[in-house]
Amino acid sequence: MKNYVLLTLALFIGSFLHAQTSSDVVSKNEHKVVIQLTSADTNVHKVMVKQLGNLLAAAPNAKIEVVCHSGGLDILRTKLTVVYPKLKELNGKGVRFVACENTLKERKISKEEIIPESGYVKAGILEVILKQEEGWSYIRAGQ
Amino acid sequence: MKNYVLLTLALFIGSFLHAQTSSDVVSKNEHKVVIQLTSADTNVHKVMVKQLGNLLAAAPNAKIEVVCHSGGLDILRTKLTVVYPKLKELNGKGVRFVACENTLKERKISKEEIIPESGYVKAGILEVILKQEEGWSYIRAGQ
Amino acid sequence: MKNYVLLTLALFIGSFLHAQTSSDVVSKNEHKVVIQLTSADTNVHKVMVKQLGNLLAAAPNAKIEVVCHSGGLDILRTKLTVVYPKLKELNGKGVRFVACENTLKERKISKEEIIPESGYVKAGILEVILKQEEGWSYIRAGQ
Repeated sequence: MKNYVLLTLALFIGSFLHAQTSSDVVSKNEHKVVIQLTSADTNVHKVMVKQLGNLLAAAPNAKIEVVCHSGGLDILRTKLTVVYPKLKELNGKGVRFVACENTLKERKISKEEIIPESGYVKAGILEVILKQEEGWSYIRAGQ
Repeated sequence: MKNYVLLTLALFIGSFLHAQTSSDVVSKNEHKVVIQLTSADTNVHKVMVKQLGNLLAAAPNAKIEVVCHSGGLDILRTKLTVVYPKLKELNGKGVRFVACENTLKERKISKEEIIPESGYVKAGILEVILKQEEGWSYIRAGQ
Repeated sequence: MKNYVLLTLALFIGSFLHAQTSSDVVSKNEHKVVIQLTSADTNVHKVMVKQLGNLLAAAPNAKIEVVCHSGGLDILRTKLTVVYPKLKELNGKGVRFVACENTLKERKISKEEIIPESGYVKAGILEVILKQEEGWSYIRAGQ
């Protein structure tokens, strides 16, 4: 009889631990979002930084990574970006911006042309996939 | 010996419960999808409502929420929407449309300008993230 | 006392099994990605096939399915596609391309107009949802 009590307890504790693990993944206090930017359109860039501001206002602890590849790299190019003050401000609040090295190669752009706040990934598209595999939500920037 | 039998049983029941929880999340009978609309382009609106019709035809019990923010808010504006009959029909079939209150503020649009079938969320982008965290699939509307 | 030891062991094994199941889902050796293409823009098509090449270079074992619906069907139309050699090459490397039968009907396009490398699904949008439900990452092609 005692065994049944203990086993019931074990199942109860086990399911409790499992539930806790699951809720960690979707914890409302720790949003994680990967944003994919492929557009060179400066209007898309302006809308995106505004949305990032809104998102941080609503969820100050959100972990945000913006993957810039293809035309989207232009938001990180010192001479082309029209939202640099906003990028610096967002970066100061923890938003990570990364440039795709494949895009750099293909478009013959050197890292010296990229804003110093930017990080780098080898393949932008793979980064977006890896983050989703790690449970991050996905947002595609664009119109 | 009896203990081992009980423990094996506990592990078996535990893994069964776990498997059941997992399959609930991806149940083929209960699709959940959050659609993000940010485009003001009426062609995008027309294509989206047609796709929603196709989706409900293929999966009548699908739970669908369309988050309209940025330019996408226009689909919910009484004087601007070109697909209102379709929105009413889809809403009657259970599709939920929500307007982003941040967008309302930024674009100085009052709720009186929004169709009565619409619900509201504070931050559209956060809503899209929250739904993904709850296991909903994500579709980005657009061209 | 012996019972406690066994129960602790059961809990430990249980949580270990659970952790293993979870890590299977996000295995870094088996990326799965569903790509949604709805644009008829040939520039979008060119960028997408280039990105698929980059993705396969970075992750040769990635399982990739490209769902072509709405305007995106044009990439699979023999007389309209501008990237057919690339599609054949990617298909040879395991990339699956599928055309949406709803789109075929709506746009009155016969299967004879579609490249022989293509597969078919009834509803493109539902296919994108089903794949996400099965744990595939989602990438929306486009600008």
